[in-house]
Amino acid sequence: MNALPDLPIEPPRAGPRTLGEQLALRVAERIQRGALAPGARLPSVRESARLHRVSPSTVVSAYDQLQAQGLVEARRQRGFFVREPLAAARIAATAPRGAGVPLGPPVDATALIRGMFHQGAAASGPGMGTLPEAWLDQPLLDRALRRTLAQAGDALRYGHPAGDDALRQALSRRLGGELGIGAAPGQIVTTIGATHALDIVARTLLQPGDAVLVDEPGWAVEFARLTRLGMRLLPVPRGGDGPDLGVMARLLTEHRPRLYVTVSVLHNPTGHTLSLAQAHQVLKLAEAHDLTIVEDDTYAWLAPPHAPRLSALDGLQRTVYVSGFSKILAPNWRVGYLAAAPALAERLIDTKLLGTLTTPALLERAVAWCLDQGLLRRHAERVAQQLDGARSRVVRLAGEAGCRFAAPPQGLFGWVDTGVDTERLAVPLAAAGWLVAPGHLFQATPRASSLMRVNFASAQDARFWQAFATARDALAGTGAG
Amino acid sequence: MNALPDLPIEPPRAGPRTLGEQLALRVAERIQRGALAPGARLPSVRESARLHRVSPSTVVSAYDQLQAQGLVEARRQRGFFVREPLAAARIAATAPRGAGVPLGPPVDATALIRGMFHQGAAASGPGMGTLPEAWLDQPLLDRALRRTLAQAGDALRYGHPAGDDALRQALSRRLGGELGIGAAPGQIVTTIGATHALDIVARTLLQPGDAVLVDEPGWAVEFARLTRLGMRLLPVPRGGDGPDLGVMARLLTEHRPRLYVTVSVLHNPTGHTLSLAQAHQVLKLAEAHDLTIVEDDTYAWLAPPHAPRLSALDGLQRTVYVSGFSKILAPNWRVGYLAAAPALAERLIDTKLLGTLTTPALLERAVAWCLDQGLLRRHAERVAQQLDGARSRVVRLAGEAGCRFAAPPQGLFGWVDTGVDTERLAVPLAAAGWLVAPGHLFQATPRASSLMRVNFASAQDARFWQAFATARDALAGTGAG
Repeated sequence: MNALPDLPIEPPRAGPRTLGEQLALRVAERIQRGALAPGARLPSVRESARLHRVSPSTVVSAYDQLQAQGLVEARRQRGFFVREPLAAARIAATAPRGAGVPLGPPVDATALIRGMFHQGAAASGPGMGTLPEAWLDQPLLDRALRRTLAQAGDALRYGHPAGDDALRQALSRRLGGELGIGAAPGQIVTTIGATHALDIVARTLLQPGDAVLVDEPGWAVEFARLTRLGMRLLPVPRGGDGPDLGVMARLLTEHRPRLYVTVSVLHNPTGHTLSLAQAHQVLKLAEAHDLTIVEDDTYAWLAPPHAPRLSALDGLQRTVYVSGFSKILAPNWRVGYLAAAPALAERLIDTKLLGTLTTPALLERAVAWCLDQGLLRRHAERVAQQLDGARSRVVRLAGEAGCRFAAPPQGLFGWVDTGVDTERLAVPLAAAGWLVAPGHLFQATPRASSLMRVNFASAQDARFWQAFATARDALAGTGAG
Repeated sequence: MNALPDLPIEPPRAGPRTLGEQLALRVAERIQRGALAPGARLPSVRESARLHRVSPSTVVSAYDQLQAQGLVEARRQRGFFVREPLAAARIAATAPRGAGVPLGPPVDATALIRGMFHQGAAASGPGMGTLPEAWLDQPLLDRALRRTLAQAGDALRYGHPAGDDALRQALSRRLGGELGIGAAPGQIVTTIGATHALDIVARTLLQPGDAVLVDEPGWAVEFARLTRLGMRLLPVPRGGDGPDLGVMARLLTEHRPRLYVTVSVLHNPTGHTLSLAQAHQVLKLAEAHDLTIVEDDTYAWLAPPHAPRLSALDGLQRTVYVSGFSKILAPNWRVGYLAAAPALAERLIDTKLLGTLTTPALLERAVAWCLDQGLLRRHAERVAQQLDGARSRVVRLAGEAGCRFAAPPQGLFGWVDTGVDTERLAVPLAAAGWLVAPGHLFQATPRASSLMRVNFASAQDARFWQAFATARDALAGTGAG
């Protein structure tokens, strides 16, 4: 084992880098200069905490950062190991135990996600999935919570399994009035963010071994979750107007999938929005093949007005609508929801009960207040305007850095072709402090990709594009692109 | 179809009964006098809303109440139907689609649970699983939240996947200092209540078809969740000192289960606490058979001092510790947690990420404040004292009503032998407004039971015991007991 030197990390604690960041940096340097070879095991958390005279949570934070940077990997019940540089094959090997799934996803999604959640990375993450903190409205959140606290008392009972009444009523009004989706409050179920809603739907409608249609490219967390639940992923190529209908029809006939999980509007990562004509065709196919569609509308508040939702066309007959407030209001409040046909909503509530019993009404009521006062609407308009400016700037910077947009820039994300393998590109950029989202993470079928997803709001720093160009040229120069 | 009469429900809306309660009462009366026969379908939610000129959510609430009272049952994608009175066989038929599980649990757990969450039922529910609202400390919760709000700002980012740092540090101190369980903050993962923690552990360590040891009697939600996940339940009889070691050893050899889910201290529903000697034997068996144990310590704050935890003996080597704050502080805050060996904790965090990303830091920090200020400790002591009084009273009332305690009365729950089939007994009591928890719900193997679980805190009303005696005598008189 390669133990790290027995020296405490330098003070001061209040400096610009946290202890965890300092430790991560030190280990990263050792890996980069070869002092820690690929395959070497890092000291255990306890051991490292003792060696460096820091708390175990500092070590966990440092190891998280190293994992997010792709420098180390966690092996089940064995610890952290230095990764082989860029061994794409390795990724498939970390698939969950006994998956037995024909189409393995890039399970290293968790590395990207952990990076996304890391506080330090938030400042400089062109690969982030959320708006920068500075774009959100803390005073609005404080006001909403203080209002809600004043009329509290619901903390003393579990609450309604379907969620807070005030929020479900507000959502029913929004869905009907703004998105054309008729859903009574009784058809709406609140969740711990949209992620939890997607999880509840999958657990209710599917059983292990079932086939599921997914957009490709698509969202890695969704692929990883479905795979972990034992489902077979059937990727459908996602084009500008919607899914490839020919491929979809063939997969429906050959595999009889039960579910199609899709982002219709401002698709992640491409930014594409389903056309009305394509939406109609998708629903016809769904009807012919008795397919249920989960429409993930996570980016609803950033969408252009009148973007068509499958759930609106279909009237929630064979669609389930999923959305939330993490991307516009408060990521950590973890308020999401789903809307479904009445009988299905009852089954989804049962699944919610078995997994979390209920959800915190305080935060749900605070969201309801923001909706009812029209303050969320106004905030969303401000954000959309700000995002338009950011998008223009990033399109220019990306162009100057020699990138091409693989899809027309819209919404929060740009889908950028770099000309080199972005999984390899991500490593030097991460080492330089820039978290990017390489294209292979959005593939249900593992393969190299020259694409990457950039967050228009958090990719405006010209220094990122300089670092990008340098790393890209170095890669291209080695003929590795 | 038996449509209900086309009359709006009487005003006033502000009366003692909600519209939903009025509607439920009206339907219940029609069922009881035979106007709605067993097997009849209730009007759909939309239809009923139109007929009665109430909102669909009012109808959903009414149907929920009827379901909780055992008068109607939901059939998947078909609606609500009047139940055959007391058809025990019916319960097994509601098992989840394609379960293919040898040992079916009483899935009607959801009816009990939905009843528990219903606000009206809370006032008069001897079968409830929580402390009455009046026993909890709303001013303490308000204070904690206002303190926490003042130092907020974390709502703007997702937060650490393992949970709020302050809470994990406070929990590490409590576990080490008070329960003898050494767990660094990095080994602790926060969850949406203990339920979510149990779900995360099962999803991480098991795959469909795996065998799982469970206590019998045990907690119905746990049985239902494991079954829904596709696991095979292996019930181990739970005695006064702990599980039946002979049965456990045989099941370990024959079925090679991967997991044992157990409540060591103040077991639900019996109130039993594992003896130190038995704990040692259980761990020896676990080691010999490479079994992981999930120790559900939901009632930790009501437990006598020095009650031994498996996790303390084992040092979290092959145990995972699960607990939360719903039973002592704030059910709707949904703050729970787990503690595990460092490498396993990392895997559990990944599962948490895939299902909910993170959890709300605001509520976690508020719990941390209550812990750090010693206010939760003081509150718990007051509750324990109050519970001692309630327990004495209920033991007397139950004795006067002719009941025998099947286990020495301890903690929150009494395990009472009534001499008649408690599933049948529950129906007239529910119609009279008393929610009870019949024994068959705590069986992993469906069979009639003369036992019921009573909540000492909410079974103090002498009128309940009168209603109980009347219903019991009526049943015994028909020879149906």
